[in-house]
Amino acid sequence: MTNNTPPWDEEYDVVIIGSGFAGLSAAIEAKQAGAKTIVLEKMRIPGGNSAISGGLLAVANSELQRQEGIIDSPELMLDDMMQAGMQLNHKELARMVAEQSATVLNWTIDTLGVKYKESLNHLGGHSVPRTYITDTSTGSGIIQPLLAKCRELEITVQMKTMLNQLLSDTTGRIDGVEVRCDYLFPQQDSGQLKRIRARKAVIMATGGFGRDINFRMTQDPRLDKSIDSTNQMGATAEGLLSALRVGATPIHLSWIQLGPWASFHEKGWGVGSMFTLLAGFPYGIMVDANTGKRFVNELSDRKLRTDAMLYHDRIPVAIVDSLGVIKATTLDKCLKQGVVKAFSSIEELAAADNIPLPALRETLERYHLSLARGRDGEFGKQLSNDLKPIENPPFYSIRLLPKVHHCMGGVQINERAQVLSISNQQPIPGLYAAGEITGGIHGSSRLGSNAIVDCLVFGRIAGQQAAVEQL
Amino acid sequence: MTNNTPPWDEEYDVVIIGSGFAGLSAAIEAKQAGAKTIVLEKMRIPGGNSAISGGLLAVANSELQRQEGIIDSPELMLDDMMQAGMQLNHKELARMVAEQSATVLNWTIDTLGVKYKESLNHLGGHSVPRTYITDTSTGSGIIQPLLAKCRELEITVQMKTMLNQLLSDTTGRIDGVEVRCDYLFPQQDSGQLKRIRARKAVIMATGGFGRDINFRMTQDPRLDKSIDSTNQMGATAEGLLSALRVGATPIHLSWIQLGPWASFHEKGWGVGSMFTLLAGFPYGIMVDANTGKRFVNELSDRKLRTDAMLYHDRIPVAIVDSLGVIKATTLDKCLKQGVVKAFSSIEELAAADNIPLPALRETLERYHLSLARGRDGEFGKQLSNDLKPIENPPFYSIRLLPKVHHCMGGVQINERAQVLSISNQQPIPGLYAAGEITGGIHGSSRLGSNAIVDCLVFGRIAGQQAAVEQL
Repeated sequence: MTNNTPPWDEEYDVVIIGSGFAGLSAAIEAKQAGAKTIVLEKMRIPGGNSAISGGLLAVANSELQRQEGIIDSPELMLDDMMQAGMQLNHKELARMVAEQSATVLNWTIDTLGVKYKESLNHLGGHSVPRTYITDTSTGSGIIQPLLAKCRELEITVQMKTMLNQLLSDTTGRIDGVEVRCDYLFPQQDSGQLKRIRARKAVIMATGGFGRDINFRMTQDPRLDKSIDSTNQMGATAEGLLSALRVGATPIHLSWIQLGPWASFHEKGWGVGSMFTLLAGFPYGIMVDANTGKRFVNELSDRKLRTDAMLYHDRIPVAIVDSLGVIKATTLDKCLKQGVVKAFSSIEELAAADNIPLPALRETLERYHLSLARGRDGEFGKQLSNDLKPIENPPFYSIRLLPKVHHCMGGVQINERAQVLSISNQQPIPGLYAAGEITGGIHGSSRLGSNAIVDCLVFGRIAGQQAAVEQL
Repeated sequence: MTNNTPPWDEEYDVVIIGSGFAGLSAAIEAKQAGAKTIVLEKMRIPGGNSAISGGLLAVANSELQRQEGIIDSPELMLDDMMQAGMQLNHKELARMVAEQSATVLNWTIDTLGVKYKESLNHLGGHSVPRTYITDTSTGSGIIQPLLAKCRELEITVQMKTMLNQLLSDTTGRIDGVEVRCDYLFPQQDSGQLKRIRARKAVIMATGGFGRDINFRMTQDPRLDKSIDSTNQMGATAEGLLSALRVGATPIHLSWIQLGPWASFHEKGWGVGSMFTLLAGFPYGIMVDANTGKRFVNELSDRKLRTDAMLYHDRIPVAIVDSLGVIKATTLDKCLKQGVVKAFSSIEELAAADNIPLPALRETLERYHLSLARGRDGEFGKQLSNDLKPIENPPFYSIRLLPKVHHCMGGVQINERAQVLSISNQQPIPGLYAAGEITGGIHGSSRLGSNAIVDCLVFGRIAGQQAAVEQL
């Protein structure tokens, strides 16, 4: 602090911005390593996007894979990540996510007491089923145990506290934050300014900018206000911008992912996304209602799917039958809200969704032939052993609409979660980051269920490293 | 200036960093508008990448198009830019390039006395032939007249002067630069520090970072030192980083373009690139030497072509005959340096390049059939009326290798070439940018011959606007 600057209002060792998976796991590790730690969250409730996510974790070499006889490895998971990411991934960081996925799963079970369902899911772009899901089918199933652990460790998680700017000392070390307390999102000037010292480090865990229409349009002008997002309203860019203003290196900002599974008939993430993720895509088919034909591998990477859905004026509809919805945890809500419709026959479904019936029948026949052969010659969908022909009523359909879901880009970090300076590619002293605010790990496209693992792996590393930051 | 800062060593109204197309055209406009102007260039000679470029300008609705009966419009050129750019382009800026292309061409002829060849070229990704080429077939054919105009207007273009940092006053306005004079590239600490005041504005015209291996790898880890570049050695990132450090908004940094036309048998841009651009691709075909087959539209966008060339272990070879090389200005040099080889028959060519002869013969027959039909059913190449069968010896071949060529990404500007702040998307007072340091105009992929037009259009705007910057 120079002579002219005002005194600190509060002092901690480690100050964490954001209370999602990355922020809370960082807080737990920092506190357990002996650091006086606080978590600051701008919204009224904790958890951010993490809390409303699907609670899906991709894990290589897991206990459930052993039980189900599925052969997997961190190398295979890394290959899947690199292929989806168009090889733009920072490979050494991606490798850490794959290699530590099993460890971090066990941490959530052993240390946090998180509960998972007993069977795996096969998500798009993954070579094998490797995705755990919390027993509540939401990220809240991990956020609540993280918050409980924070209470147990007496870590304050302070709501309605907005980061205004990162502060640095005369040597360039980040030594605190200026925040607005009693901030009422989204009223920019609400609350009172306070200066909070971070004796060791600040950890940025502020998430992505999927709801920041102005900023996302600088990177991809197509993503204007007409495009919906699955994110919570607080997924805005100001945390990222604060980091860039102190010299963080921006990476891959223009790679903004749309999710292929959200419903046309509701706003945001809604209840339909999980239905499509767990039933419509793995156990059903997606057709263009104009033609009745499939047009893309329903389990391919998200970018391939959303590109295919957005072009050619397609009307994407996923179709599945009663055997395919067994894992669809949100089915009842979907039916109640009209997001998914049920029909006693394919004829009825085709009539209701305006799909040409002969073409749809032919599409189903071809798909069933592929199932019989064990190989989808047309689109290369990975056909699990438990797939059955779509012929058991009731039949279900969901009309889909791609929505902004995840920001692959962000600030560059190293293996210690230190933020790298644009000036010299060296760590900015006192500044760490983890989770969706970071860029590079997923390259051009993040695979489904890889975000939570990423957040937990690098959140924990950031907390551990920040606690022992050399001054 | 605050009390603590040292006095200025020199004072100007407008300080321009970089002496390529953008910098020199900015200088001419600023000086003509009455501003005391200086151009600072870090290298020993002026012109940067501009001087070694091919001297190609895409112009919509040009005099040569009227003479040749080619129907074109700024709208069509804009459509081509947006399609190549995957619609990521900042459309309002791209539109300005297309709409002002004819005006800026006339400016180079009327004001600078630039001379062009009398016929148009058809470059990849353009719907119609619209590309002018200087009579020397290099960018030097424009750089030399720009330098002559600067001398006439008594604008100093000062070599060996390296930007160290942008300086700002207490309000955040950019008010000057710290530079190293007598700088000897690439010795980072050479030269003496000086502070040069910019009473009205600084214009960043520092080009791309295609030769900056460290920085380009942060954005695309594949582009390591094993990948060559067509750029001059001074195409490094420090100018861009200086702008980002004062809060410029980064756009599309991970979109780095490789050029598909450079030779496998020489370093850098060399003499082969222009041969492929003017003969091999428009008048010949490209085959994979492993198979003897074509694999991509030789006139498609650069990204499509380089992706196709890099995958599947292809050995790309372009083949053209004596009628096809009429516009190939570098043919003699290519033959002398062994970059292009000449053969009296297709049999000899196939033997020398290890191409299976029956497959190559079949490929040629199919291509000639397409010419007869006027339609390339296989790859959709636009077949101009002047294309003839490849059957007139001597035959020529060139083995190709994609090389880093252009950085689509950079800082965000508005229609006045003002650099926009990451904090609020408003102009940073006193800071302008033009040319390859800017991002957004070309989206994910710049079309060939669109860079010079972009540099000249926004260079001139930056100079005009900087000269009347309101203090």
